[in-house]
Amino acid sequence: MKDINQFTITQAVKESFKTEPGSRFESLLHGLVEHLHDFTREQNVTHEEWMGVLNFLYDCGKISTPERHEFILLSDVLGWSSLVDMINTKGGATEGSNLGPFYLDNAPVKQLGGNLADERDGVTVLVHGKVSNTLHHPLPGATIDTWQADATGTYPIQEVDQDKYDLRGKFTCDENGRYYYTTVLPKPYTVPYDGPVGVLLRAGTRHAWRAPHMHFIVTAPGMAGITTEIFFKNTEYLDNDAVFGVRQSLIADLKPAKDIDKLGYTLDKKPDAVIEFDFVLAPEG
Amino acid sequence: MKDINQFTITQAVKESFKTEPGSRFESLLHGLVEHLHDFTREQNVTHEEWMGVLNFLYDCGKISTPERHEFILLSDVLGWSSLVDMINTKGGATEGSNLGPFYLDNAPVKQLGGNLADERDGVTVLVHGKVSNTLHHPLPGATIDTWQADATGTYPIQEVDQDKYDLRGKFTCDENGRYYYTTVLPKPYTVPYDGPVGVLLRAGTRHAWRAPHMHFIVTAPGMAGITTEIFFKNTEYLDNDAVFGVRQSLIADLKPAKDIDKLGYTLDKKPDAVIEFDFVLAPEG
Repeated sequence: MKDINQFTITQAVKESFKTEPGSRFESLLHGLVEHLHDFTREQNVTHEEWMGVLNFLYDCGKISTPERHEFILLSDVLGWSSLVDMINTKGGATEGSNLGPFYLDNAPVKQLGGNLADERDGVTVLVHGKVSNTLHHPLPGATIDTWQADATGTYPIQEVDQDKYDLRGKFTCDENGRYYYTTVLPKPYTVPYDGPVGVLLRAGTRHAWRAPHMHFIVTAPGMAGITTEIFFKNTEYLDNDAVFGVRQSLIADLKPAKDIDKLGYTLDKKPDAVIEFDFVLAPEG
Repeated sequence: MKDINQFTITQAVKESFKTEPGSRFESLLHGLVEHLHDFTREQNVTHEEWMGVLNFLYDCGKISTPERHEFILLSDVLGWSSLVDMINTKGGATEGSNLGPFYLDNAPVKQLGGNLADERDGVTVLVHGKVSNTLHHPLPGATIDTWQADATGTYPIQEVDQDKYDLRGKFTCDENGRYYYTTVLPKPYTVPYDGPVGVLLRAGTRHAWRAPHMHFIVTAPGMAGITTEIFFKNTEYLDNDAVFGVRQSLIADLKPAKDIDKLGYTLDKKPDAVIEFDFVLAPEG
């Protein structure tokens, strides 16, 4: 019988999986086992610490529901989600950022120039810009799918007395690849901190606030879609966003609404302020 | 505003936790973040793979109950549990091995020479040996807490019509540090494979069988307790135990019961076979 010890067990575990040599599954599995085992040897993990980790994961499972995925939140606060976004950003394209937990894939279709916020309180802002490819050619017919919090930092989907489709919309860009609509300026909010991830944040004396932002999924035929967020200059938590979502390139200027008539848009509501942000998509594959 | 990218995010996440410099919490947390991020960069993890891992953990949480901890099982099949056992084995002491999911901390107290198996079918075996310290001095009063499967590979706790305290017992060693009792020889069984961990095992064409074994927790005043298992020479799955629990030093000889009168034990039941295994405990701390 072959004996295994704390140094040979890693190879034994890898060999126990009869994976296709060179396959993606093998690479991921072997990498996972190596890092898990290396971490354990480097740290001399005790039984109490080992069980502490497993019970933490158990607790994350127990608080999770189809509407609340505590493991995504854990990934967020460990910067894992953002790292995956960064790695998968294509050269020349707009940087990716957190999808977050509030996306709905069937947001209502809206007309360019429409207002997402109805009569909600807050600063009304015109959000506009161009969607182009990496050669700066506009992409007419590109789709902008956006969702956001309101001026109190709340997503309608979080409230029992609100329509979960509020503050969401899908827009199709015009023949020049332009999009434009009005909405309210969102405020900061906290990620949920009443569960195991909250315990972790408190243990590390970390806050749960996110810098204010709007979410976007931008797609166009033949192009790789992007999931990202737009942030706003001079707002709170840009330097210490709880989920590491902020990138310099994703921070937009927020300017008073003057001379907007020159833009030639037909708007349903008069804005107080303007945000201009251009999205760039790279080819698929 | 400081910008972060796929290389600087690791440091940013570590700094976001205001941990006590040099503390154990800081060391574990920084090690975890570094390995998680290194793995992600090395593998160029995609969004689909990232979400696959998070949904796998979500599913592990959903199938877990107080009686079934899928995260411990996951740790077991990835060799993590065994690696932690190996790292925490003290020099000179008996090697540790899996606690497993079936331990109950209030097993019935039994007298030396008693029979754990009542009238159960199977090979009746005398289990005996000595508990000593690392200088070979016996430890009178040491406690042996044992539990095991039956001759069909089933733990009574898994069956609705059986007493969950069956095939369990706590024994106190005699003045020579000796323990002895009879029981039935356990058979192999499978770890649960009807959940997410089963999906992982099948993806890697791995079986779920454990080599037959008996569980032990051995303690004595002033000594570091050990949690371990005894396996049996020439039985199945010694080389490919599903949870990597087997160590060469934990495999006992299984011999016919002859000349056992010479041992001077008073036994409640006549054994067919004999297993001798000595446990060694190291000092606490």
